[in-house]
Amino acid sequence: MHAPLDHFATLAVSAVDNSLEPTLRARIDGKAKPPGSLGRLEDLAVQLGLIWHPAPPRTDRAMVFVFAGDHGLAEDHVSPYPASVTQAMVAAYLAGCAGMNVLAKAAATEVCVVDAGIAADVPPHPGLIDRKIGYGTRNASREPAMSIDDARRALSASIALVSDAIDGGIDIVAIGEMGIGNTTSAALIAHRLTGTPIGDCVGRGAGLDDAGVLHKRAIAQKAAARTAASAPLEVLAEFGGYEIAMMAGAVLAAAAKRRPVVIDGFIASAAALVAVRLHPAARAYCVFSHRSAERGHAVLLEAMAATPYLDLGFRLGEGTGALMAIPLVRAAAGILTELADLSDVLAGRLGQTQ
Amino acid sequence: MHAPLDHFATLAVSAVDNSLEPTLRARIDGKAKPPGSLGRLEDLAVQLGLIWHPAPPRTDRAMVFVFAGDHGLAEDHVSPYPASVTQAMVAAYLAGCAGMNVLAKAAATEVCVVDAGIAADVPPHPGLIDRKIGYGTRNASREPAMSIDDARRALSASIALVSDAIDGGIDIVAIGEMGIGNTTSAALIAHRLTGTPIGDCVGRGAGLDDAGVLHKRAIAQKAAARTAASAPLEVLAEFGGYEIAMMAGAVLAAAAKRRPVVIDGFIASAAALVAVRLHPAARAYCVFSHRSAERGHAVLLEAMAATPYLDLGFRLGEGTGALMAIPLVRAAAGILTELADLSDVLAGRLGQTQ
Repeated sequence: MHAPLDHFATLAVSAVDNSLEPTLRARIDGKAKPPGSLGRLEDLAVQLGLIWHPAPPRTDRAMVFVFAGDHGLAEDHVSPYPASVTQAMVAAYLAGCAGMNVLAKAAATEVCVVDAGIAADVPPHPGLIDRKIGYGTRNASREPAMSIDDARRALSASIALVSDAIDGGIDIVAIGEMGIGNTTSAALIAHRLTGTPIGDCVGRGAGLDDAGVLHKRAIAQKAAARTAASAPLEVLAEFGGYEIAMMAGAVLAAAAKRRPVVIDGFIASAAALVAVRLHPAARAYCVFSHRSAERGHAVLLEAMAATPYLDLGFRLGEGTGALMAIPLVRAAAGILTELADLSDVLAGRLGQTQ
Repeated sequence: MHAPLDHFATLAVSAVDNSLEPTLRARIDGKAKPPGSLGRLEDLAVQLGLIWHPAPPRTDRAMVFVFAGDHGLAEDHVSPYPASVTQAMVAAYLAGCAGMNVLAKAAATEVCVVDAGIAADVPPHPGLIDRKIGYGTRNASREPAMSIDDARRALSASIALVSDAIDGGIDIVAIGEMGIGNTTSAALIAHRLTGTPIGDCVGRGAGLDDAGVLHKRAIAQKAAARTAASAPLEVLAEFGGYEIAMMAGAVLAAAAKRRPVVIDGFIASAAALVAVRLHPAARAYCVFSHRSAERGHAVLLEAMAATPYLDLGFRLGEGTGALMAIPLVRAAAGILTELADLSDVLAGRLGQTQ
């Protein structure tokens, strides 16, 4: 470990001041609309107000960080796809023709693709950020996926990356991932950090049939039985992936910098839970975007008392669910910053704001 | 009636060719993602493919048409707000500081505000389209809200307006409304066109208390008992508003021009049902955006076999729910037009598309 680079060790997350919530609610109730008529968008507006206080929320630049990493677990056939697909999909992200690119364009969101630990040498590309910790993790069904030091290195690398992006003007952080085998990794994290039986955390992933799910469950069972680790950093090292560690770091960086971080689905939520267990104050900065079709997601959401905004049956990853929530974040901020007060509307006191 | 202006009488809506659906599904299943992993967005992609066939869907320019009209029913206190709020909110739309403006900005959607029948002379404004049919409707609890001729004039006016906008380059049409009293009007339409008891169609609107709902229900009951009209154009004239008629016309114009039309909540859905009963083929062009918190919305959705994409507890109107679905429409179109095929990704055949 390089001590000067240990952004994880020195990170501080400030709690939001929840005592401001009634004031924010009252402000929103005074806007030019029936009280409560923008539903859950008003809850999101309150959250953004708390995060940004005392400044008004900004939402001009949003960036999705898609971290890619391979998993030793993939050699046990826990996914219908071979590990080489991770690298192929990263090439598609860089060519701008994957699902994530399509949705990022629709959501007016910038894309940052990060090699967290792909099991191959990826050709350099101006759009690819190389933060490779290793050539894939080790097989967690037999040994720890990574060392504690590597987990800290991954956390530190993404804390530095995302902090720099925020310092450079990113207002909304979103996280997503690519990594063949990583629903098994996320299931193990969900199991160990919440105490839910591993069988209830394992799902079909990218599309396993019933036999495939049974096999995946057996592999996950074997990994879970291997270690009693329960502290978040240890759980991350035992079962995680480099991309999961970096997503956890991204959550922590956003929280430390007081920016909202939009969490994608199952795997990103596993990373968020690691982050929240490391720094509980980080929870208040997380915006849970969508309810994944993957079984274990509900376990993670419940553990963080989170109710996602969207329920579209997504189970792709790549930040796609988070991306579809970015317009909601922008709209929610606008409730605070652009929507007139009802009293002004009724009195005809309208500034020409556009 | 001016015969040359009767765009309603001459309107033709072509059915989409549903036999193309398996081909579109197969195309989407071949994209670079696990089959089905973009959930309901894939259904929306299929719908857009059917609408635009044989051309690829375009989504560059989206426009929300917000039609404003007053209701004679408002004199019976069916809303907690006085009718004068309609005009005040229109002024807010034009000043760019209402909820609709905030959400339109977040969804990169242009705004078109239309005076369909506000009960006042609205000062001219470059952003206001004057298509006023009358100074509010008559009180439907005592007499028909408008004449059949006025209903046709309203339909024709918006068909012309929206058709021209599409000819001018609008790819996605969205509809919304403002009109104090119009949840009662929409409840009556829902009741009469679906056969649902009127009591089950009346809700809290902009925020009535229990006593207010009971009173509103009694007024609606009285209106319903006044006439046995059941044909869609008659129902529209008996119970509708000018803004509801114009929203129905907007749906028909979009369908006739083969463009998707994003339907807002309860009142817009009542207009959509009128349009679909007039031209059943128009249903295939409707994108139902969100599930409103207003009670009668479920009745309308069921009548059109519609499952909205969003469920955020909105009950504001103004097109706000439709606006939050515009990024979904753009993303769904991108699945067809921008997302690479998996076979190309795995073979490394990636065009540099961005």
